[in-house]
Amino acid sequence: MSARLKAGVLGATGAVGQRFVQLLAGHPWFELVALAASERSAGKSYAEAVSWRLDVPLPAAAAGLPVRPTEPGLECDIVFSALDAAVAGPIEEAFAKAGYAVLSNARNHRMAEDVPLLVPEINADHAELIAVQKKRRGWKGFIATNPNCSTATLTLALAPLDRRFGITSVAVTTLQAVSGAGYPGIPSLDILGNVVPFIAGEEEKIERETRKILGKRSGDAVTFHPMVVSAQTTRVPVVDGHTASVFVSLDTKADLEGVREAFRTFSGPPQQLGLPSAPAHPTVLFEAPDRPQPRLDINVEHGMATLVGRVRPCDLMGWKFIALGHNTIRGAAGAAILNAELLKAKGMI
Amino acid sequence: MSARLKAGVLGATGAVGQRFVQLLAGHPWFELVALAASERSAGKSYAEAVSWRLDVPLPAAAAGLPVRPTEPGLECDIVFSALDAAVAGPIEEAFAKAGYAVLSNARNHRMAEDVPLLVPEINADHAELIAVQKKRRGWKGFIATNPNCSTATLTLALAPLDRRFGITSVAVTTLQAVSGAGYPGIPSLDILGNVVPFIAGEEEKIERETRKILGKRSGDAVTFHPMVVSAQTTRVPVVDGHTASVFVSLDTKADLEGVREAFRTFSGPPQQLGLPSAPAHPTVLFEAPDRPQPRLDINVEHGMATLVGRVRPCDLMGWKFIALGHNTIRGAAGAAILNAELLKAKGMI
Amino acid sequence: MSARLKAGVLGATGAVGQRFVQLLAGHPWFELVALAASERSAGKSYAEAVSWRLDVPLPAAAAGLPVRPTEPGLECDIVFSALDAAVAGPIEEAFAKAGYAVLSNARNHRMAEDVPLLVPEINADHAELIAVQKKRRGWKGFIATNPNCSTATLTLALAPLDRRFGITSVAVTTLQAVSGAGYPGIPSLDILGNVVPFIAGEEEKIERETRKILGKRSGDAVTFHPMVVSAQTTRVPVVDGHTASVFVSLDTKADLEGVREAFRTFSGPPQQLGLPSAPAHPTVLFEAPDRPQPRLDINVEHGMATLVGRVRPCDLMGWKFIALGHNTIRGAAGAAILNAELLKAKGMI
Amino acid sequence: MSARLKAGVLGATGAVGQRFVQLLAGHPWFELVALAASERSAGKSYAEAVSWRLDVPLPAAAAGLPVRPTEPGLECDIVFSALDAAVAGPIEEAFAKAGYAVLSNARNHRMAEDVPLLVPEINADHAELIAVQKKRRGWKGFIATNPNCSTATLTLALAPLDRRFGITSVAVTTLQAVSGAGYPGIPSLDILGNVVPFIAGEEEKIERETRKILGKRSGDAVTFHPMVVSAQTTRVPVVDGHTASVFVSLDTKADLEGVREAFRTFSGPPQQLGLPSAPAHPTVLFEAPDRPQPRLDINVEHGMATLVGRVRPCDLMGWKFIALGHNTIRGAAGAAILNAELLKAKGMI
Repeated sequence: MSARLKAGVLGATGAVGQRFVQLLAGHPWFELVALAASERSAGKSYAEAVSWRLDVPLPAAAAGLPVRPTEPGLECDIVFSALDAAVAGPIEEAFAKAGYAVLSNARNHRMAEDVPLLVPEINADHAELIAVQKKRRGWKGFIATNPNCSTATLTLALAPLDRRFGITSVAVTTLQAVSGAGYPGIPSLDILGNVVPFIAGEEEKIERETRKILGKRSGDAVTFHPMVVSAQTTRVPVVDGHTASVFVSLDTKADLEGVREAFRTFSGPPQQLGLPSAPAHPTVLFEAPDRPQPRLDINVEHGMATLVGRVRPCDLMGWKFIALGHNTIRGAAGAAILNAELLKAKGMI
Repeated sequence: MSARLKAGVLGATGAVGQRFVQLLAGHPWFELVALAASERSAGKSYAEAVSWRLDVPLPAAAAGLPVRPTEPGLECDIVFSALDAAVAGPIEEAFAKAGYAVLSNARNHRMAEDVPLLVPEINADHAELIAVQKKRRGWKGFIATNPNCSTATLTLALAPLDRRFGITSVAVTTLQAVSGAGYPGIPSLDILGNVVPFIAGEEEKIERETRKILGKRSGDAVTFHPMVVSAQTTRVPVVDGHTASVFVSLDTKADLEGVREAFRTFSGPPQQLGLPSAPAHPTVLFEAPDRPQPRLDINVEHGMATLVGRVRPCDLMGWKFIALGHNTIRGAAGAAILNAELLKAKGMI
Repeated sequence: MSARLKAGVLGATGAVGQRFVQLLAGHPWFELVALAASERSAGKSYAEAVSWRLDVPLPAAAAGLPVRPTEPGLECDIVFSALDAAVAGPIEEAFAKAGYAVLSNARNHRMAEDVPLLVPEINADHAELIAVQKKRRGWKGFIATNPNCSTATLTLALAPLDRRFGITSVAVTTLQAVSGAGYPGIPSLDILGNVVPFIAGEEEKIERETRKILGKRSGDAVTFHPMVVSAQTTRVPVVDGHTASVFVSLDTKADLEGVREAFRTFSGPPQQLGLPSAPAHPTVLFEAPDRPQPRLDINVEHGMATLVGRVRPCDLMGWKFIALGHNTIRGAAGAAILNAELLKAKGMI
Repeated sequence: MSARLKAGVLGATGAVGQRFVQLLAGHPWFELVALAASERSAGKSYAEAVSWRLDVPLPAAAAGLPVRPTEPGLECDIVFSALDAAVAGPIEEAFAKAGYAVLSNARNHRMAEDVPLLVPEINADHAELIAVQKKRRGWKGFIATNPNCSTATLTLALAPLDRRFGITSVAVTTLQAVSGAGYPGIPSLDILGNVVPFIAGEEEKIERETRKILGKRSGDAVTFHPMVVSAQTTRVPVVDGHTASVFVSLDTKADLEGVREAFRTFSGPPQQLGLPSAPAHPTVLFEAPDRPQPRLDINVEHGMATLVGRVRPCDLMGWKFIALGHNTIRGAAGAAILNAELLKAKGMI
């Protein structure tokens, strides 16, 4: 692992694109060399093209990079896709066909049978689908995806319980941050002092993606987890951090200490392999009765963990608790980078 | 009903007390003649004692009333109690003993066996407990209560389904406004751009009060509804309006149109009796996919209805939907006033 | 004044257009009969075309009106223009040429020499420019304008002082609500928990429009007021209500009681003529040390007054105070309607 | 400077106290060894006593420290005072008398003739008042103060202009964050979606402290700067970061490039001495037309600089611009720590 892999970002000027640029600055394994965005930005430097919205400065190494068209020809080995779903499908396929490792945050290919939907602590072995994909499609490169932002938070909270007790069913209500809708995203007139009890397409993503992620790989395919997942999603006036109120039924009997220990001790390949972006604890259990809270806790583990609190028995479903995750880090850019680190460590990139 | 009943407000300077003063101004059946508050305010006029926080002007008729001690001696027939639970218990008992009709928003007596916990569209007949209470306690007056703010919203959304299909179980997550915590209440540093996933005592209230309200009166007592209710409650940066994400299982088979019709056609004694504060529709069904929303919809039916939207089947529980209610009107002061109107119409005051 | 004048709204689906529709519903002098918007909405009913964002229901009388193209041919006498400045110029001219009375909220014609920029309490006589305009342009109809939202608030706070003491100079900092930017307007990611210290073009409008409004009509023209006005404008996370921090120098000596009396007693033609939308007091003086506040006070006088507070001497400029106004009512739709009422009362429509 | 000085924090559990604990963790010159707070917290560990409200974790080294009474006896050389003004006066005097170097953020002693009110980039020589103070009062220790939070931001924006051009007068309007009022501080019901145009005592502090800080030391005293300062202060729904809208008149003629250069090149003893907490640039000039903004820019220079933007001529006062500073870092705890570093570097501690 002497030389760093050359990396590019597709859709680099958007909200998730900016997180990729931030997180890749100074990355030990990946060197950010190419930034691509829509034609509007062509010919400009990244600093000129981007309306930088993060509360940390634009990394100097990225500021001067020219913005390139979002098409193969970028001089790099790996591309991180922050493309909008409206255009991501064919563009990502073109890159994969041209030999790039495509780590995508877009929803377009997540549910394809031969595309892994990875949360490395949970289903690192789903990466084996890449070989199936390359063979089936005749591609030199490939596409690997990370889940939707709220699903990312939820699955890291469910996996510890599923691994130890089995999960039968989940009823979840989310309270999602505005950064999850990108920029410009939600108009301020819609959300100031308000709750919008609807996010288009979000519930379907949570209900399907969760079952694929927690599913079992058998040969060339993933068998979805049989759990029933039902979601209601809302938008709240929070900048970063999706909160989830979770009710869950387990397959087997559990006691409070066992459930808490499941959260506290959960770990997986990223921790074992010491991946650079891996949180020490992918699930962090809070003891205080009123935590986790997005504004106070979202940066725990650099935004790469799901924070769990208020774990307690539920007369109806068995157990209930609160989960919180950073939607543009573990829920988007950080997730794709962790996936790339996993594939690199496995020798698949 | 020629002459108006004379009415007083206990705890008149607090957040709920102010709503009582606002809603009683110009009330056709009740004349606001007495305002009582803690000793700090004694000897002042109401205008001097109160830090008026509503976005409508302090009613002129109330401004000049002297603030009296919260003890029997007020020259009125009925008192509305906005007292804090820390002191409400014995004070309300003293007033009832002294012959006053006490309409209380405090939690202290709600669960007492001989105290009605009224939502007049749902359980107007529970008012018969008042006779039991007077007899058992030897009081000339009585105490009647309205539910906790989030329970008020929830029960008006559950009753239409329970009446028509029967309810087996409910999993509810609330997103509650800051006005629900009174004034000064929630520090701004706690809630600006944040979600606090905990409200002390709130889940227990929802889980118990709902079952009493929807319970059946048999003789001198109320048999609790057998449904299982499980709640998680959160605070969000909204001024007024508690949102609830509800998952519900029904006893009998229902189809979407039947469920929708149950909400649309729900009605009860307040509507039949034409009570002055009764909403035309205690449950208002929204068709738009992203409604109801607190900032836009909270004043529908003058804050006296529960607003329901996004009604749809749920793979797990059967049905799911969003409910919204005005926490300081139908969830507090307006509820107590509607209770008083019911009792007046029934000749019980 | 037996029959009501027929009125239309141009740009009826936008934020200000919606306020026009709300305020014209049931207006005693004007009957809302025509709604026009961009081609996107053509052929739809208003209820279908609009994304209604106000916290009061869409008026039933407007819901079923067909949305018409924004071009002459509407069957009405008067049109209220809520058009975007990008398109308002030629469209308003076409309507005026075709004989309509055009009451415009757009900035395009405000500074034209022969177009009145009216605040009826201040410069009702500027309406005489309409005759000049019709003659000079050979139009059957005309254009009359109201000021920019922050200027509307500011001028009603300055006029009482100017009339009594004369004003030499003004330094003003505004804290403006997001509704002032229309819909979708300000992205939530830009303004949640934030201040944006810049509003494009706003400072220039305040600095110029104020001097025209407070200017003197002499013959066919208005001589601008010689005062110096300097502004800094900011956007804050408030829904409705522009706050202004004002420092002002007077031409003549004043004492505190005189300044306060000037605010308290200010009045003009709308009050004398009893115009339907006229506030009883166009300037309302607050005594409490921490008022006016947008969320609590914005609906005083139905949003048609400027609220003034914290009036006190200033070592530097002479006087300083806080002013607050409702930016989409007195700062936009309500202002244009009051202008129309003035012209109707003067027999100019 | 081999061994670190032992340091304590008075009022350690409050909002500013927490910032001291955060900023002192791992400080190269000061070792945090003692935490003192009110009697309520006595006998608890800091982790038990504090309701930690910062979005970074409580430093491990502080968590286990016992909370001590706020009275001399702490085993340290220097105490940082985050005490409330209601109690700070005599307590700080007792510590100074007992030989401690007291670096105070409280307002109580700021205006005392023999107490330095330090902004080290501006008036490091005012530290000479310490010798006067010790002599006059017969104390072994001393008290040195930093300014009020909004004054800290303002003076760093004025000093570059005053040094180069001289300042005649200043009109400033502030938009202040809620963290400036401590915890619990501002109730959420007061500030959500609102502006409160008043902060008790704040305007007086800005008007007086600014003139002392920019004043000249002559012998044993400081002669106040003759500039006239007039302020209006408001509270806005922002967590951290005070914005100031500044109008300023200069003594001598300036051009835009000269004014900009004054901001860009401003520097002082902290930079020359390389103090650990010194920002590289105490005044940072922004070029973008809509910056600085609190949520995006507040952490530039680790919160230790004043950020300046929108610098331009003003027809009335000569110049106008926007300034922004982190109110609990450079406006409170960070300021006191920088003062301590200055005194340590000068050999005065």
